[in-house]
Amino acid sequence: MTTDDPSFSPPSFVPFERLCLIGLGLIGSSLGHATRRAGAAREIIGVDRHQPNGQKALEIGFIDTLAPDLETAVTGADLVILATPVGAFDAIGKAIGPHLSPGAIVSDVGSVKGVALDVLTPHLPAHIHLLPAHPVAGTENSGPEAGFASLFDGRWSILTPPEGSDPDALSRLTAFWEQLGATVEIMTAAHHDLVLAITSHIPHLIAYNIVGTAADLETVTKSEVIKFSAGGFRDFTRIAASDPDMWRDIFLSNKDAVLEMLGRFSEDLSVLQRAIRDGDGATLHDLFSRTRAIRREIIEAGQDAAAADFGRRPPSRADDSKF
Amino acid sequence: MTTDDPSFSPPSFVPFERLCLIGLGLIGSSLGHATRRAGAAREIIGVDRHQPNGQKALEIGFIDTLAPDLETAVTGADLVILATPVGAFDAIGKAIGPHLSPGAIVSDVGSVKGVALDVLTPHLPAHIHLLPAHPVAGTENSGPEAGFASLFDGRWSILTPPEGSDPDALSRLTAFWEQLGATVEIMTAAHHDLVLAITSHIPHLIAYNIVGTAADLETVTKSEVIKFSAGGFRDFTRIAASDPDMWRDIFLSNKDAVLEMLGRFSEDLSVLQRAIRDGDGATLHDLFSRTRAIRREIIEAGQDAAAADFGRRPPSRADDSKF
Repeated sequence: MTTDDPSFSPPSFVPFERLCLIGLGLIGSSLGHATRRAGAAREIIGVDRHQPNGQKALEIGFIDTLAPDLETAVTGADLVILATPVGAFDAIGKAIGPHLSPGAIVSDVGSVKGVALDVLTPHLPAHIHLLPAHPVAGTENSGPEAGFASLFDGRWSILTPPEGSDPDALSRLTAFWEQLGATVEIMTAAHHDLVLAITSHIPHLIAYNIVGTAADLETVTKSEVIKFSAGGFRDFTRIAASDPDMWRDIFLSNKDAVLEMLGRFSEDLSVLQRAIRDGDGATLHDLFSRTRAIRREIIEAGQDAAAADFGRRPPSRADDSKF
Repeated sequence: MTTDDPSFSPPSFVPFERLCLIGLGLIGSSLGHATRRAGAAREIIGVDRHQPNGQKALEIGFIDTLAPDLETAVTGADLVILATPVGAFDAIGKAIGPHLSPGAIVSDVGSVKGVALDVLTPHLPAHIHLLPAHPVAGTENSGPEAGFASLFDGRWSILTPPEGSDPDALSRLTAFWEQLGATVEIMTAAHHDLVLAITSHIPHLIAYNIVGTAADLETVTKSEVIKFSAGGFRDFTRIAASDPDMWRDIFLSNKDAVLEMLGRFSEDLSVLQRAIRDGDGATLHDLFSRTRAIRREIIEAGQDAAAADFGRRPPSRADDSKF
């Protein structure tokens, strides 16, 4: 855990008695697997509004019990984690509020934290500790079969406790995430939403956008785009394959920060556009040299491997027959 | 090789006598390694305007001889490949023109093909076969130590022969690329430049742009951008670490197609911006669902692995101490 408070010292870990997972998709299922691996909860109850997801979760075995409804799911749980799109938080908060056990921690894994506080706070009784969280981890896959225990290993989990949060509850949730393999960082919800707008939300938006632009061209066929995607486009399609429900909700719930960052991105892009039009190679070269240094810092910080493209399976020659 | 001409049948492979590589960076060194692996040339001569690159190439051993200058390098070569930034083509064409052997093939590996024809044609005698090529392969690394023999395996190499090209010369160059592991596609230079603008040049431009935007923010520190880059930004930094000289030249030499595609990208982005501002979730969800389908097609076409993020080394926990 990193924090500015020098008096903070995490206690030795006390597992939760009963973890309730609301939403059993990629993150919910990974939470189940990782909690089991760590022994971080004695019991895991799951609930999902899609019945087949719940059945699949039981089959795979990352929950002990499938609850028939939200009320039953949260009853007796000392840790409740919402792992659904942010758009469902209001209805879920309303449904679970009256049934939460005294002193329970309610958290989430949403990518926007201001809205988690805004939407959930009115529904929760005073005896509940609302401690929003955002594990910066994921893949472009969805559903209960997409999860795995190591998803959070070495990743950041950002906690955004509201002012005046209970330090013991915060310590317990911090210890939980550390047991799951993550490194915890604490910041305000507002700052989180600004940081993630530039490191995650805008990259997703422009990846979605360019893949859409390419698909709509008349002069270049879609099959040509797919064939020659190795030139750079391919990396964007990976990002642009992320869950549509989740990302719609992210953009709508982090509107201000996203529009602010998008404005800056567009301004900067206009400068490049002008430089290309004017044949101003120095402006281009200057930017391209600066960005290369940032890549080096990310590799040095251990956030990615230096190896170029080696992680990827080379395309099968046999597939060429399709073209 | 894929071509629309049903009468085309590639001859059995005849290696080149003497391959001359001009430029010994990532692509030049990979060409050397791959040519050696395939036995596709009996002799490889290299030349590079940076003396240390040439020495390194000799040391690594992917060339047989280092030429002291361009004139010496091309003398007696039956295949000359320019593997330098496009910006150097004019000077190189001028220098080598008078010294090329009758019937030699002059090719390149540049990412823009219209300019290769425009710049090189005036310098070359009539007895030379100018056959521009673009292997769609690369990494973000540069220099003679970055190359490896398998870089072109399973990748496309696009040949853009000018109208009236000699079919035998085209067959020989096609066979050469196939020996190096690539699959050859033939199209006009103009169409190539349009296709690559959307599959490669625009993705690079917006990756460079967003990494620059992030670095310039006052509200979010650069160290926060680096720490939380796993949310999507990291993939852009990989692309934005590509060689600045090469990419400056690409944008300047494919100006028209890049500005055309950039205009469409910006228009589409404005629609998304408006949808976010208006809270129009349906427009966002519709695009996000369409783009996901394109990712599936790329995976089915064998251009990328379905595996989520597994190719990447998980960040080392030990590195956390840096933060």
